[in-house]
Amino acid sequence: MHNFLSGVVPPVVTPMTAQGVIDGPSLCRLVDHIITGGAHGLFALGSSSETVFLTREQRKEVLSIIMDHNAGRVPVIAGVIDTTFPKVRELVEDAVALGVDGLVATAPFYVRTHRKEIEEHFRRIHELAPHIPLYAYNIPICVNGVVLDVDMLIELAGEGVLAGVKDSGGVDSYTRSLVEARNDAGITAFSVLTGSETTVDMAYLAGVDGVVPGLGNVDPAAYAKLHELLVAKNFALAAELQTRINHLFRIVFVGDGTRMGGSSAGLGAFKAALKHLGIIDSAAMAPTHQPLNAEEIAAIAQLVDKYGTPR
Amino acid sequence: MHNFLSGVVPPVVTPMTAQGVIDGPSLCRLVDHIITGGAHGLFALGSSSETVFLTREQRKEVLSIIMDHNAGRVPVIAGVIDTTFPKVRELVEDAVALGVDGLVATAPFYVRTHRKEIEEHFRRIHELAPHIPLYAYNIPICVNGVVLDVDMLIELAGEGVLAGVKDSGGVDSYTRSLVEARNDAGITAFSVLTGSETTVDMAYLAGVDGVVPGLGNVDPAAYAKLHELLVAKNFALAAELQTRINHLFRIVFVGDGTRMGGSSAGLGAFKAALKHLGIIDSAAMAPTHQPLNAEEIAAIAQLVDKYGTPR
Amino acid sequence: MHNFLSGVVPPVVTPMTAQGVIDGPSLCRLVDHIITGGAHGLFALGSSSETVFLTREQRKEVLSIIMDHNAGRVPVIAGVIDTTFPKVRELVEDAVALGVDGLVATAPFYVRTHRKEIEEHFRRIHELAPHIPLYAYNIPICVNGVVLDVDMLIELAGEGVLAGVKDSGGVDSYTRSLVEARNDAGITAFSVLTGSETTVDMAYLAGVDGVVPGLGNVDPAAYAKLHELLVAKNFALAAELQTRINHLFRIVFVGDGTRMGGSSAGLGAFKAALKHLGIIDSAAMAPTHQPLNAEEIAAIAQLVDKYGTPR
Amino acid sequence: MHNFLSGVVPPVVTPMTAQGVIDGPSLCRLVDHIITGGAHGLFALGSSSETVFLTREQRKEVLSIIMDHNAGRVPVIAGVIDTTFPKVRELVEDAVALGVDGLVATAPFYVRTHRKEIEEHFRRIHELAPHIPLYAYNIPICVNGVVLDVDMLIELAGEGVLAGVKDSGGVDSYTRSLVEARNDAGITAFSVLTGSETTVDMAYLAGVDGVVPGLGNVDPAAYAKLHELLVAKNFALAAELQTRINHLFRIVFVGDGTRMGGSSAGLGAFKAALKHLGIIDSAAMAPTHQPLNAEEIAAIAQLVDKYGTPR
Repeated sequence: MHNFLSGVVPPVVTPMTAQGVIDGPSLCRLVDHIITGGAHGLFALGSSSETVFLTREQRKEVLSIIMDHNAGRVPVIAGVIDTTFPKVRELVEDAVALGVDGLVATAPFYVRTHRKEIEEHFRRIHELAPHIPLYAYNIPICVNGVVLDVDMLIELAGEGVLAGVKDSGGVDSYTRSLVEARNDAGITAFSVLTGSETTVDMAYLAGVDGVVPGLGNVDPAAYAKLHELLVAKNFALAAELQTRINHLFRIVFVGDGTRMGGSSAGLGAFKAALKHLGIIDSAAMAPTHQPLNAEEIAAIAQLVDKYGTPR
Repeated sequence: MHNFLSGVVPPVVTPMTAQGVIDGPSLCRLVDHIITGGAHGLFALGSSSETVFLTREQRKEVLSIIMDHNAGRVPVIAGVIDTTFPKVRELVEDAVALGVDGLVATAPFYVRTHRKEIEEHFRRIHELAPHIPLYAYNIPICVNGVVLDVDMLIELAGEGVLAGVKDSGGVDSYTRSLVEARNDAGITAFSVLTGSETTVDMAYLAGVDGVVPGLGNVDPAAYAKLHELLVAKNFALAAELQTRINHLFRIVFVGDGTRMGGSSAGLGAFKAALKHLGIIDSAAMAPTHQPLNAEEIAAIAQLVDKYGTPR
Repeated sequence: MHNFLSGVVPPVVTPMTAQGVIDGPSLCRLVDHIITGGAHGLFALGSSSETVFLTREQRKEVLSIIMDHNAGRVPVIAGVIDTTFPKVRELVEDAVALGVDGLVATAPFYVRTHRKEIEEHFRRIHELAPHIPLYAYNIPICVNGVVLDVDMLIELAGEGVLAGVKDSGGVDSYTRSLVEARNDAGITAFSVLTGSETTVDMAYLAGVDGVVPGLGNVDPAAYAKLHELLVAKNFALAAELQTRINHLFRIVFVGDGTRMGGSSAGLGAFKAALKHLGIIDSAAMAPTHQPLNAEEIAAIAQLVDKYGTPR
Repeated sequence: MHNFLSGVVPPVVTPMTAQGVIDGPSLCRLVDHIITGGAHGLFALGSSSETVFLTREQRKEVLSIIMDHNAGRVPVIAGVIDTTFPKVRELVEDAVALGVDGLVATAPFYVRTHRKEIEEHFRRIHELAPHIPLYAYNIPICVNGVVLDVDMLIELAGEGVLAGVKDSGGVDSYTRSLVEARNDAGITAFSVLTGSETTVDMAYLAGVDGVVPGLGNVDPAAYAKLHELLVAKNFALAAELQTRINHLFRIVFVGDGTRMGGSSAGLGAFKAALKHLGIIDSAAMAPTHQPLNAEEIAAIAQLVDKYGTPR
């Protein structure tokens, strides 16, 4: 049914209390907000979900809430993000038990790795759950700069090991080369999804199938509309909408870089915006994220009111 | 008793079967080999222990075996290495329950982080176990290039949050600046340990207190002798011994870089050497490490026989 | 007349003999080939021109030949690429004396530099020739990773110091943020040109004004056609043409990476293709570029015949 | 006579007026200061000489003044630092005409290069002046991160192409591996010189032959004394002196990093110190270096008075 993943698949952020407890009701409202906004799928336990800040139990809790509340409305793919295969294996077991529609795995990290090792990593994960689509997650900024090799990805696609790629590498010529290599190989069952919020129109022009936008938590309707325009090949209008979205995206640059890192500023902005919109109850992040201050939160609210899709 | 950590503290590798089961008897023999060789402490669950390849249960198992078998002979410090504070917290709980003599934590990784966030990371870990010495682990190559800020480390040392640093940054001028900043601040209870196998003599000359050498699994006696010469300020002889050790260290470059990454080649060499010496039963590594081939293993054995301390 | 630079502006490669002597007749034929193909301008003495392999006298010779032979047909912008301002100053004097229509300068390189120093660099170059448009060249891969700051560029654009940017940074979200910042600032006299051969359609969709494609030496007609489609907002057809062009671009990956670097493989491919097309007499490159072998040259010719615009 | 280069060989900074004119009398006083201080050689036109800020004519002027004023007292090696071989060739001709005792060349830069190309680069430079010792300059931070391959250097040493290496890579394990590879190959005519100001004692312990310290402009006597202690294998005393020198070295960190880059702060400090000592008339640097302010200059003077060798 959900065989080929395409469209808007936001990485669902994880609402939590100031004490770090998962906030289920807020998470349910967020899931509704995203689906009602027109998203085509949900990416649970992604980087924007603070996955690497959640214990194994918490990850299960979050995924369980999302699966239950989604109740089959859209496909749910789940991150199984950890340093190496033996640890990813545990996460795969948990996700499979909860009935996910797809798995998303990065290259091994922390360790110095190699193409052969990455390839075996994906093969072994696939063997654990051969009937569940597996997506490779290209995110060099998080895994010591490792870029997933295009030839390797296409080889694994051809063998049915991989069902797609989520590309958060930030280099659109890479994304395009992936699409071209897939097409040249005559492979159809392989989704290429961009992780870039600000170049979705460009990525679709190059042939990608969908987008995994963190900002899609805040304004899923804008991305759904963007997808619609792009599928209709209405590129000029899409570019105008993209520009409006990019002004909204500036919320992630509001946080003061002398006081916090990019994760605090970015996730903090998504959560502050969602709180401002009344969707989640608290903008708290897991430790040791640094909080935005009142002035920054006000500036974010202003950008949301100005550039967000009216509700 | 073990208040100030100094001397040779090898990161204990984790013997396992080809099926990935922890090999307790081999691990006990290895602990004996290291202690008998003259090491002054043990670093359990470090990078060379394949920590990030071990599940939480396996980490507990490994640490438990080491604590039991060591039986107080030397201090045991334990890595609590995971992506962020909430996950490190679990590992701290486990390590504290097993009675370790010290904890070793890196900066957060996978996430984009910041000095303020790293500082809070160490403060929170310290608060979990204020009576157990906490060592910061500087290992940029594993944590997206993040280098621990010298001023931050000294500030945390002055406040009693940190008891020392294990520096695997590979830049000796950094190591030295750390020693100098510590001395200028008049701080005495702060160990600086180098993680470099090949520049121990240089690091001691600059004033470090000890070394955490992966190669110390294979030849602890050589490092113990090196430490002895260095403490006696017999630098010229130490440099000669260092040169011999560095020839032994070439075992980590035997593995073919077109077939495997640096972790496979390095850990594979340590394990192959230990098997050759009859200390561990299998040189198997956790997946998805790639194995050395017979020719490479033979070359490693030859280097061990030629440059290792006769047993 | 040539006030606002837009369209296809190939960086003209420098034909030379095996002895490293500039081959004027070949260069004139190449200029004709590019202009006849429909290019809108010429970028002389760019990276693809082997500028940093040419002595000051040779740069003057090359620029003089191009200016003379072009004879005002299209605007000619000239690279003034050297490590620091005092050295760039000499090149500016030479270029101005030859009557160029624009100057193109990178950030300082070799030295560790800073935004303030880069800003002053552009200001001082502009003061040398205030009536000649100055273009900033963003090419981090050549200048120790330095990325030109968007806010700085827009500030300098607003003051009339810069007339545009050639962006070879390879990150399309950067290119787009530059376009958006320009538009938000209400600046019209500021050209944004992409240096990417393979994402021209995407860059135009994001609002750039032109492209500086090295491959435009080989197939200027394809890029001229691409520009035409893009200006007409015929994006879907443009993307198809872009895909064909990208297959031609594979000539730059033919050279064996174990025998040569990216510059040898890339420039070597452009020159081999131009020789195959009968435009230049020799594919020789300046030392210490490494030559392509016969097999590689044949593979390049085949790609040109298959994917190049028929002549 | 000067066959094997060893000892302290400071890279001579280039005094200039605020108008950027070379200040010959100041340069002569500086040469005297360095030689009187006990240096064993002079490195003209190195990175610290602002070489890449000097035109070809200015480089000749500087080198000519140094050669004349030195008058054979110590060997003078000269940087021939430019992007590629054709440009380096001009500099070699100039340096040879002025009678230098050695040449110092980096890997090609600005261009994407390759080991084969770097090797040919050194071979061709050597062929231009086969009777003048050629030193390879390892300085990755200036040349897009390129590290000179140890095996390549030793191969070129064995063939007589290279007479030594100046290593400013900042990684002492690299320096040591170079020394060990040289010794293992039985090569004697190959000097290894460290470019690190702050780890000279460590580098000598590892077997280097000398040091090229920028700070040696300011306090040549300290480095001469350090060399003396190290040659006598008096390592403990040397380390104490090194620590004192390192406190003096802090002058390079005085310049405010929000206002200037590392080159401005570092060279600015050397020149401010030399002016404070009455050796040069102006601390001006070539554009677009940013100047230190009065407060910073005062702080530098204070450090010089406190930690410099009394004169």
